[in-house]
Amino acid sequence: MFTHVKDLQFDASPDGPDPAFARRFQEVLGGKWGEMTVAMQYLYQGWNCRLPGKYKDMLLSIGTEELAHVEMITTMIDRLLDVSPLTPKEAEGIGGTSAPFSHSNPQHTIANGGGAYPVDSNGVPWSGAYITASGNLMADFYLNATAEMQGRLQVARLYGMTDDPGVKDLIKFLVTRDHYHQMQWLAAIEQLKEDGLGGIPVPEAFPLEEEYEEFARTFIVASDGDKATDGLWATAEDGPDGKGPLTSSVIAAQGPVPVLPPGDPRLFGTGSGDGDGASLLQKAKDALL
Amino acid sequence: MFTHVKDLQFDASPDGPDPAFARRFQEVLGGKWGEMTVAMQYLYQGWNCRLPGKYKDMLLSIGTEELAHVEMITTMIDRLLDVSPLTPKEAEGIGGTSAPFSHSNPQHTIANGGGAYPVDSNGVPWSGAYITASGNLMADFYLNATAEMQGRLQVARLYGMTDDPGVKDLIKFLVTRDHYHQMQWLAAIEQLKEDGLGGIPVPEAFPLEEEYEEFARTFIVASDGDKATDGLWATAEDGPDGKGPLTSSVIAAQGPVPVLPPGDPRLFGTGSGDGDGASLLQKAKDALL
Amino acid sequence: MFTHVKDLQFDASPDGPDPAFARRFQEVLGGKWGEMTVAMQYLYQGWNCRLPGKYKDMLLSIGTEELAHVEMITTMIDRLLDVSPLTPKEAEGIGGTSAPFSHSNPQHTIANGGGAYPVDSNGVPWSGAYITASGNLMADFYLNATAEMQGRLQVARLYGMTDDPGVKDLIKFLVTRDHYHQMQWLAAIEQLKEDGLGGIPVPEAFPLEEEYEEFARTFIVASDGDKATDGLWATAEDGPDGKGPLTSSVIAAQGPVPVLPPGDPRLFGTGSGDGDGASLLQKAKDALL
Amino acid sequence: MFTHVKDLQFDASPDGPDPAFARRFQEVLGGKWGEMTVAMQYLYQGWNCRLPGKYKDMLLSIGTEELAHVEMITTMIDRLLDVSPLTPKEAEGIGGTSAPFSHSNPQHTIANGGGAYPVDSNGVPWSGAYITASGNLMADFYLNATAEMQGRLQVARLYGMTDDPGVKDLIKFLVTRDHYHQMQWLAAIEQLKEDGLGGIPVPEAFPLEEEYEEFARTFIVASDGDKATDGLWATAEDGPDGKGPLTSSVIAAQGPVPVLPPGDPRLFGTGSGDGDGASLLQKAKDALL
Amino acid sequence: MFTHVKDLQFDASPDGPDPAFARRFQEVLGGKWGEMTVAMQYLYQGWNCRLPGKYKDMLLSIGTEELAHVEMITTMIDRLLDVSPLTPKEAEGIGGTSAPFSHSNPQHTIANGGGAYPVDSNGVPWSGAYITASGNLMADFYLNATAEMQGRLQVARLYGMTDDPGVKDLIKFLVTRDHYHQMQWLAAIEQLKEDGLGGIPVPEAFPLEEEYEEFARTFIVASDGDKATDGLWATAEDGPDGKGPLTSSVIAAQGPVPVLPPGDPRLFGTGSGDGDGASLLQKAKDALL
Amino acid sequence: MFTHVKDLQFDASPDGPDPAFARRFQEVLGGKWGEMTVAMQYLYQGWNCRLPGKYKDMLLSIGTEELAHVEMITTMIDRLLDVSPLTPKEAEGIGGTSAPFSHSNPQHTIANGGGAYPVDSNGVPWSGAYITASGNLMADFYLNATAEMQGRLQVARLYGMTDDPGVKDLIKFLVTRDHYHQMQWLAAIEQLKEDGLGGIPVPEAFPLEEEYEEFARTFIVASDGDKATDGLWATAEDGPDGKGPLTSSVIAAQGPVPVLPPGDPRLFGTGSGDGDGASLLQKAKDALL
Repeated sequence: MFTHVKDLQFDASPDGPDPAFARRFQEVLGGKWGEMTVAMQYLYQGWNCRLPGKYKDMLLSIGTEELAHVEMITTMIDRLLDVSPLTPKEAEGIGGTSAPFSHSNPQHTIANGGGAYPVDSNGVPWSGAYITASGNLMADFYLNATAEMQGRLQVARLYGMTDDPGVKDLIKFLVTRDHYHQMQWLAAIEQLKEDGLGGIPVPEAFPLEEEYEEFARTFIVASDGDKATDGLWATAEDGPDGKGPLTSSVIAAQGPVPVLPPGDPRLFGTGSGDGDGASLLQKAKDALL
Repeated sequence: MFTHVKDLQFDASPDGPDPAFARRFQEVLGGKWGEMTVAMQYLYQGWNCRLPGKYKDMLLSIGTEELAHVEMITTMIDRLLDVSPLTPKEAEGIGGTSAPFSHSNPQHTIANGGGAYPVDSNGVPWSGAYITASGNLMADFYLNATAEMQGRLQVARLYGMTDDPGVKDLIKFLVTRDHYHQMQWLAAIEQLKEDGLGGIPVPEAFPLEEEYEEFARTFIVASDGDKATDGLWATAEDGPDGKGPLTSSVIAAQGPVPVLPPGDPRLFGTGSGDGDGASLLQKAKDALL
Repeated sequence: MFTHVKDLQFDASPDGPDPAFARRFQEVLGGKWGEMTVAMQYLYQGWNCRLPGKYKDMLLSIGTEELAHVEMITTMIDRLLDVSPLTPKEAEGIGGTSAPFSHSNPQHTIANGGGAYPVDSNGVPWSGAYITASGNLMADFYLNATAEMQGRLQVARLYGMTDDPGVKDLIKFLVTRDHYHQMQWLAAIEQLKEDGLGGIPVPEAFPLEEEYEEFARTFIVASDGDKATDGLWATAEDGPDGKGPLTSSVIAAQGPVPVLPPGDPRLFGTGSGDGDGASLLQKAKDALL
Repeated sequence: MFTHVKDLQFDASPDGPDPAFARRFQEVLGGKWGEMTVAMQYLYQGWNCRLPGKYKDMLLSIGTEELAHVEMITTMIDRLLDVSPLTPKEAEGIGGTSAPFSHSNPQHTIANGGGAYPVDSNGVPWSGAYITASGNLMADFYLNATAEMQGRLQVARLYGMTDDPGVKDLIKFLVTRDHYHQMQWLAAIEQLKEDGLGGIPVPEAFPLEEEYEEFARTFIVASDGDKATDGLWATAEDGPDGKGPLTSSVIAAQGPVPVLPPGDPRLFGTGSGDGDGASLLQKAKDALL
Repeated sequence: MFTHVKDLQFDASPDGPDPAFARRFQEVLGGKWGEMTVAMQYLYQGWNCRLPGKYKDMLLSIGTEELAHVEMITTMIDRLLDVSPLTPKEAEGIGGTSAPFSHSNPQHTIANGGGAYPVDSNGVPWSGAYITASGNLMADFYLNATAEMQGRLQVARLYGMTDDPGVKDLIKFLVTRDHYHQMQWLAAIEQLKEDGLGGIPVPEAFPLEEEYEEFARTFIVASDGDKATDGLWATAEDGPDGKGPLTSSVIAAQGPVPVLPPGDPRLFGTGSGDGDGASLLQKAKDALL
Repeated sequence: MFTHVKDLQFDASPDGPDPAFARRFQEVLGGKWGEMTVAMQYLYQGWNCRLPGKYKDMLLSIGTEELAHVEMITTMIDRLLDVSPLTPKEAEGIGGTSAPFSHSNPQHTIANGGGAYPVDSNGVPWSGAYITASGNLMADFYLNATAEMQGRLQVARLYGMTDDPGVKDLIKFLVTRDHYHQMQWLAAIEQLKEDGLGGIPVPEAFPLEEEYEEFARTFIVASDGDKATDGLWATAEDGPDGKGPLTSSVIAAQGPVPVLPPGDPRLFGTGSGDGDGASLLQKAKDALL
C-alpha cells in the first residue's frame, strides 16, 4: 500500500520552456530504459518475490523511490511545455529558429494540452513487455544493473543536449542515483552469492551433467573477423563458473539437413500430400469431402 | 555478408508431434528473451560497434551462431506441428485428452499451415524494441549476460514441461550454449576492464564531480520492510566502483511542491487563463478570434 | 514522492491455486481497463494538472490508492499460481480435468516462474496508449467514470467465473471501490460545473459562433433501422447543453466528389504527371536525371 | 451492408498544401481518439448489441456517419500533401523556412507517395485496442461521450494551429458534429435510465449486498494534498446512486503483509524449495532427474 | 459517404454456439489478413488514388463490400458466443469436454460480454500497420491479390475445423468471394498494363540506366542447397520484364570491410575518442566541461 | 547454419554525415517493407517449407542474401550518423539550417549513441507481424513479389531525397536487386504453375463445387462511381482461373437482418435476460446468488 506527498524528491524546475527538449526527455520517462520501466520492474519483482526478507524488502523500497523519479521527470516535461508554440511562426518568435517547433512532439499539444505521458522520444507508447520479473533474482539483478547502466548512459547523453541549468540540475540528480543504483544491483549480486542463493550459470540448480560437454566451454567462430578469439571469452584459464578454461572452435554442423514431411492436405500447403501435383489436389479434396 | 548451409548446428528432431508444446516453445524463438532477440541484438551491436577489433569480431561471430539457433528451434516447432489436429475430437484420438488441442496456438494452423513464426508463447509478435545496441559495450555486455541468463532459465523450465527425448536433446544443447554464453559475456566484461575501456559506473567518462555527493552512495528506504538495509547494497565497506562505503537513509523530499502555471488558453485545459472561470472562457475565445 | 507499507489495503488470499483463473484475472491487472490503467491515468492527470487545489489533490490521492489495487491483484495472481502444473498429466492430478492447464498462460511459468505481470488475459502487454491525460478535466473525468464502469463490469463478470471464496472476497472489495469511484467521478463532474470550470460541450470555451448551425443539433440517419430516431438524442426538447431541441435528418452529401491532382512524379504514383502513360514515365525520368 | 457515394459529407479542400499540418491532422484520423476509433467503436457496439431496437439502430447510424468523417479527413490530408518537398532545400523554396519539412511525417512520402493512413501524429499505427464494445450500453455510452469530448478537444486545438481557411472550415464542421455527438450520448444515457435499462453503479444488476459497506461511500485519502476532500466526491449529501452521503477516510491497510510460499523448484526461482541454499539446489536437481 | 442497411450481404447463422471456434474465427476478422485489413486497405487506396476513373471507382466499391464482410463475421462470432460457459464445469455440461472452454478467448466474456472485436485468433489487436496504400497501383494490386489468397487460404483451413453447417455456409460464401477477388486483382493488373500505367519492374518509371547491370538479372546463391538454381528464376530465357535471360552466380563481397570512426565522446560509446583508454575518458570529460 | 564475412556485399559509404536522411533510411531497414522483413520472411518460408528441393533451396539462398542487405543499410545509417549534432545550434553550424536536427530521430543519439536499429522512419519498432509464411508457396510468392515492388518503390523515392553520391550508389544497388527479385518471384510463380503445384485460385485444392456459383465471377458494385465496371475485372471474357467470363452486379442483401438473443445475465449486458428491465435485473441477481 502506498502513500504520497506532494513535495518532490528533488527539484524539477527548468529555467525556461523548451518543447523540443521535452520530446527528447520523454525517452527517460517512457522509453524502454526509462523510469516507468525501472519503477514497474522493481515493484513487480518485489511483489512476486517468493523469498521473504531482505531482497523483497529492498526491491519494494527502490521501486517506490523510482515512482518519485517518474513524478519528477513528468513535472519537468510539463514545465518545458509551459510555452508550446502552435505554429512555426510563433516558434520563431520564441526560439529564433523553427527547430524547437519542428522537433517537438505534436501529441504534447494536440492530445495532452501541454503534459507528459508514458511514451518514448518518438511517441511510441511504453509497453508492459519492457519489464521482466522472472522469479530468479540473479537473472533479474543483472538486468536491473543493466537498466541502470542504460538509464545513466541516456541521461548522460541528454546532459550534453541542453544548456538549461535547471534541467541540468535534475539530470545530475538522476546521473547520481543511477550511479548508486548500479552499485546497488552489483552489490546485491554479490550478496546472493554470499547467501548461496545463486551463481554462474543461472539457473545454477539445473544439473550440469545434462549439458553436452563438447559445447560447454567453447567460443564458436562463425565470422571471419580474425580477432574474434583474442579475448578472455576464448582464452581464460578459468571461466566465470570456476569450472575450467574457455576455448574456441570453428562453427560446424552437428545435425543433418532437416527434411520435413508433407503437411496435412486440409491445410493446403504446397506439396502437401505425396508430392504428385495431380493426386495431392485430389487427396486434399478427398480429405475435405 | 552471410552464407548458409542446410545442415543444422545440432539435431532438432522430436520423437513425435506435440502442438501444445510447439506453442510453448515459441517463447524461446520469438519471445522477449528468445533466439530472435539475441541473434539480432548481437548482430546490431556488432555492425554498430565503432571500435574495430576483437569486440566487434566477437559480436559478429556470436550473432551469426544465434541465427543457427533460430533455425533449429524453428525446425523443431515445425516438426512438433507435423500432426496438428483440427478439432477437439481429432485431438482426443491422438493425445488421449483435448489438452494439446486447447493449449495449441490457432495461428500455427490457420495462418501458417503448420509452421513456426516470430511470436511468443501467447502469439504476441516479436518486436524490434526487444533489442538494444547502445554504443556502450559495458552496458550492452551486461544486458547480453542477462539475456543468456533469462534464456537459459526459460529453456531449463521448458525441460520440465516435456517428456519427448528429442526435444529434451535440443533443450540440453541450448542450456549448454546459454551456460557458455553467460561466461562469454562475463569474461568480455572483465576484458573491457582490463583494456581500460570501461568500469563502474557506466558510462565511466561522465565527470563524477557533476554528481551530488549526498545522493551518491546511499540506499534510500521508501518501504517499511525492516530488512531492506540488511544487504551489501547498504552496508558494503566499499562499493563496486571502489570509491568508498555504501550506506542508507530514509526517503525525504528535497524539492518543493510543484505548482504549474496555467496553460495556453488555446489548448482548452481546465483552468487555463487566470483561474477565473468566466474570464478564462472569454480569454480563450479572444485568443481564437 | 511515495512511501510504501507491506501490508495490503485488503486481503488477497485465495483458498487454493488456480492457474486458469490467474490468466483470466490478468485482464483487470494489465488489460485496457485494468488497475495499471487507472493508477497511471489518475497519477498522470494529477501530475499534469495545471489547476492547483482540490482536483489535483484528489487525483493524486486516488491514483495512489489504485497502486495498492495493482499490488493486491498481483499478489492474488501470484498465489493462484502457487501450484502450476507443468504438463497436462500433472494438471489432471490436480484439477480433475486438463482445463486449468489448457487455459493457463504459458508465460506465467516459462517467463515469470509463477508471477503476475502487466499483460491482459491473452498475454498482450499493457500499453502506455491505454491512458489519457488531456489537460481538460471535464473530458478526463468522463473517461475516468467510464474506466470505473468498465472495470466494475469486468470484475462483476469475473465474480461468476470462480467459486473460490478468497478470490470472491477480493472481487467484492474491487466491486465496492469501483462503485464508489464511479460516484466519485460523477460527483467531480458536478463539482466542475458548480465551479464554472466546464460544461457541455467540451471544451466549452471554443466559440459557438464558429460552429455550423445546420449541423449542430441533428441526429443524422445513415442506416435503415427504423427506430434510430426514437430516442432522446433525436427528440429531446432541450439538449444537454441547454441550447434548444435536438432533431434528426437523413445523411446527405454537402461536399463535392473529391478529385486529387496527380502527385509528384518522383514519388512514382500511378498516373502521376499528366495522365498520359507514356509521357508521365518520361516526366518521372526527367525529374530524376 | 453498406453502400458508398463519392460525394463527401462536407467539403475537404485546403487553400494550399501543408505537409507539416498533414502530419498533425493524422491525430484525429488514426490517433486513439480519432475518427477511425469512433467509426469502428460505434459499428462494433451496434453489431454486437443484443437488444434490438432504437439503441442498436442508432449505433449503426452514427457509426456509418463516422466512416464519412474518416473519408473527409483522409481526403484533406491527401490534399495537404499535394506538394511534399523531398529535401530541406525544396522546402525552403516553398514555405520560407524548413519547418514544414522537418515537421513532416517521412512515411507520407516514402511509404504512401502522398497519402493518408491510419496512424497518429507520431506515426504510431491505429490499434484495435483503442475501441471498446463491452456489451453494457451504459458503460459504453459514457465512453462514447468521452470520445466525442476528447475528439472535439483535439480538433479545437488544431483550429489554432493553422491559418488555412479551407482546413478551418472542415475543422469547424468536425467541432460542430462533435458538439452534437456529445449531446447525443448524454441524451442516450438519459434514455437508458428512462427505459430502466441501467443506472449507477454500472452494472446495476450486481447485487449490492455483496459489497463491503465500509468501503462503499468513502473517498480514501492517500496523498498529503490538503484540499483533496474539498469536493462533492467527499462531501455530497447524496451520491450519484441516490443511496446516501459520500464521505472520506485516510488510507489504511486492512490486509496482512503477504507471504508467498516458495515456488516449484523446477521453475528455478530464487529460494524455491525450503530456503536452505544447498538443499534447495539438490531438491531442484532431484525433481528434474 | 456511406449508408447502411441492416440486412446482411449473406446469412451468418450457426447451428449452435461454439466459443472455441469463435476464437479461431477472429483470425479472419481482425488478423493480419482478415476482413478489417482488406476493407480498410481498399478504402484507403481508393480515397488516396490520384488517378480519377475506373481504378478509383473500383477500389471504393470493393472496399465498401468488404465492410459487409466485417459485419457478417462479427455477427457470426456473436452468435457462436450466444452461450459462453463461464467455468470449465459448465463447459463440460455443454460440449462433453472442456476443450471449448480452454480454447476460448477470455476477453470474449470478460471484456466484451459475448461479442466480437478487432483482434486475431490470439487476441492481438488489429493494427493500422497491416494495410498499405503506396500510391502505386501496380504494387498495391499485387498486394491485394495476395491478401485475397492468404484470406481464402485461411477460410479454407477453417472450413476443416468446424462441422457446423451454418458456419460452413458462410465460409463457403467467403471462399467464393475470395476466389473472385483474386481474379479481380489479377485482371486489374492486366488492365494497368493494357493502359500503359505500369509494368515490371515496379516502379517502371525509375530509369533503368541507373541500375548496375552486373547485378540486374542474376540469382545470387548464398546457401548450399544444390537445387536453388533449378528454377525459372535462374534459367528463364527471358525475364518477366522482357529484357533478356536470367542467370545465377555465387554470392561475393563487392564492398570492403566497413570501419566506422569513433563516435562523439559526449555519447559515451566504448572507444569513442582516439582509442586510448585513459585519454578518451579525459576527452569526454573535456567535451562536457 | 550460417557463416559471416566482414566484407560487405556492396559498398555503403556516404560522402558525408546526414542524420536527417539516416532517419528516413530507417524505413527500408526496419519498416514494414524493409530489409528486415524480406530477410526474415524468406528465411522462415524456407525453414518451414515442407516441399524439399528447388523452392526450399531458393528461399534459403535469397533470405541469406537479404541479411547482407540488412547489414549494408545498417552500416550506411551508422555512417550517416558519424556526426550527430546534439543541439539545434550545433546543427546550424553544420548544415546551414536546423532542418537536419529537427528531422533527426532522437533515439539515434539518446538510445543508440549513433547507430541504426530495427525501427521505421518514425521510430516504430519492427514487428514479427510484418512477415508471413503461410505454407502455401503460391500465396507467399505473390507476397514476396509485392514486397520487392514496395521495397523498390521506397528506395526509388529515397533516391530523390538525397544528393549524396555514396548514398545514391547504394540505393542504385538496392533498386537493381529489387528489380531482379521482382522477376525472381514472378518467375517462381510461373515455375509453380509449370510444376502443377498451384494455380488460381489459391488454394487450388479447395473443391470448387463448394463455392456458390452466383457469387463466383461477379464484381459487386457498392459505390456510385460510374466507371467501376469499366475494367477487365468486370468485363474479361475469361477470368484468370480460365473458367469463364467475369461480370458485375449491384450489391444486394442476401441475408436477413440479424437478431441476437439476449446474453447471459451474468455478463451484465444491457437487456440481457428477457428484455423486461425490472425482471432482468432480478434474473441477473438470481443467477449470481
